[in-house]
Amino acid sequence: MLITDLLIRAIEEKSCPIVVGLDPVLERIPDSIKQTAENKYGNTLQAAAESLYQFNFNLLNTLHSVIPAVKLQIACYEMYGQWGMNAFQQTLELAKSLNLIVINDSKRSDIGSTAIFYANGHLGKVPLIKGEDTRLKADFLTINPLLGSDSLNPFIQECQRSNKGLFILARTSNASAAEYQEAIIDGQPLYKKIAADIQKLACDQMGERGYSSIGAVVGATWPREIEQLREIMPDVFFLMPGYGAQGASADQLTTGFDQKGLGALVNSSRGVIFAYQSPEFQEKFPNPMEYAGAALEAVLMMRDDLLRSLRQAGKLPDNW
Amino acid sequence: MLITDLLIRAIEEKSCPIVVGLDPVLERIPDSIKQTAENKYGNTLQAAAESLYQFNFNLLNTLHSVIPAVKLQIACYEMYGQWGMNAFQQTLELAKSLNLIVINDSKRSDIGSTAIFYANGHLGKVPLIKGEDTRLKADFLTINPLLGSDSLNPFIQECQRSNKGLFILARTSNASAAEYQEAIIDGQPLYKKIAADIQKLACDQMGERGYSSIGAVVGATWPREIEQLREIMPDVFFLMPGYGAQGASADQLTTGFDQKGLGALVNSSRGVIFAYQSPEFQEKFPNPMEYAGAALEAVLMMRDDLLRSLRQAGKLPDNW
Repeated sequence: MLITDLLIRAIEEKSCPIVVGLDPVLERIPDSIKQTAENKYGNTLQAAAESLYQFNFNLLNTLHSVIPAVKLQIACYEMYGQWGMNAFQQTLELAKSLNLIVINDSKRSDIGSTAIFYANGHLGKVPLIKGEDTRLKADFLTINPLLGSDSLNPFIQECQRSNKGLFILARTSNASAAEYQEAIIDGQPLYKKIAADIQKLACDQMGERGYSSIGAVVGATWPREIEQLREIMPDVFFLMPGYGAQGASADQLTTGFDQKGLGALVNSSRGVIFAYQSPEFQEKFPNPMEYAGAALEAVLMMRDDLLRSLRQAGKLPDNW
Repeated sequence: MLITDLLIRAIEEKSCPIVVGLDPVLERIPDSIKQTAENKYGNTLQAAAESLYQFNFNLLNTLHSVIPAVKLQIACYEMYGQWGMNAFQQTLELAKSLNLIVINDSKRSDIGSTAIFYANGHLGKVPLIKGEDTRLKADFLTINPLLGSDSLNPFIQECQRSNKGLFILARTSNASAAEYQEAIIDGQPLYKKIAADIQKLACDQMGERGYSSIGAVVGATWPREIEQLREIMPDVFFLMPGYGAQGASADQLTTGFDQKGLGALVNSSRGVIFAYQSPEFQEKFPNPMEYAGAALEAVLMMRDDLLRSLRQAGKLPDNW
């Protein structure tokens, strides 16, 4: 089964089109987790990275039954060097063992001969001295299209080879997105041209449920653009960041979904994993070590919010 | 002294505007290096990563006296996970101990709140449980500008804080570069708009020698564009990939240099580090373990080639 069909099945099983961003930030992790790591490894990069993993461990064990997928922002791990990359891999493997779909949010990009290394390293297999490695990899990878088709092809090919998927940046969620993404090409803004190219690529790798393994990142912060991009990319699954901490509301993004409530996965990171620090949750979860419980409540509230908006838009499946 | 002034001093001391790309590829590393690593660590990712480092070790010890800088393509290391990132850090630290300028070629890009993590991790300091880490970082980082100014700012600020530099992708060296980079904005192609924005950013961080710590990646494979970009970015140092394996000739890229033979650093990776495998060098260096000697000869030939072209262009300093 194509990876995107597995994603859709997971969304339907949990009636929840949400991906939680595991983007741990050391300063915001409860002290007792850090204290335990420091007792074990001293005040080191390794202790910092261990804190990230332990923080994720409780989140994953609490959230896995209600969400279909997690997204790992690799920057949060990579900053801690080899130890951070170990925490990244541990988190990825734990998430896979809990049957979650895993998105590696790396936004990688390079010329073709280098893109192969990123594709092998993050989606496929890497050469060992003899044979190839068998580490678990993520199911989906985000990539940046600025370098054009020859930089995308190695990722596309790796997806075909290894049954993996991509989310290619079409329209990012940040305030400056328009600066370069609205340059004009073939009479249309660049982000629409990129979207049209993604749609073309998507057609070659379609799943049984009407969506391709080649997806797109479409910022939830741009309501008008979401609607336009859905028209340009009917076969493309959307990864939509920007809900919550970045300011997008559920009503703004329902146009990213199809009539069956599918076709999009809405991401929230800080708003969920650090819910325990927000005034909204602190009364009910006064102990920082209840952060996973607060995150669960935040996810369920987000789900209610999204489902309410989908219902209003006439897009909510009957059995959700 | 601004990092770019240190780069210029290193180029002048060695009369060599060349950066060698340490982009090791396991399949192309001599067997005896891999055998030693396998004896030590088995057929593992760690053994693969150790092979990359040992390959670099000989290259650095042979080349450091003739080149001012090395560029590490992080994809070659990252694919080997935590062990690869350890090899990356070991290589970086060895290069710094040999007084080389180090460019971390990561082409990172993300929204501002995430870009901070990349900037801290690759140029600045990262938070530990108490205080900050003191690992050595690279001197320069390559970044991708697609997300616009709010994605670039954290890197710019980190450069000011830590006396580091950037090379922002203006025009990449690959064949598909034009696909999106020639979209039109403000009446000009996107890559020129990005170049104009880089020039503006550069003005705020100028060194004593007339160049900024905010540099640009300008593919050596695009002769006409190099000339135009030099006009748009008079204060910006160019990192020019594409010489050799990617097909650019020395004559094509002299317009990237100023009248004093400065302002550009020409990169060669595969053409240098794997010279021992090319027919041109195999007769003189029949033993694969002479790869560093072959690389040295390849660098000196490349230097002769560049200096000859700079002389013809009337740009060669008298004392080089």
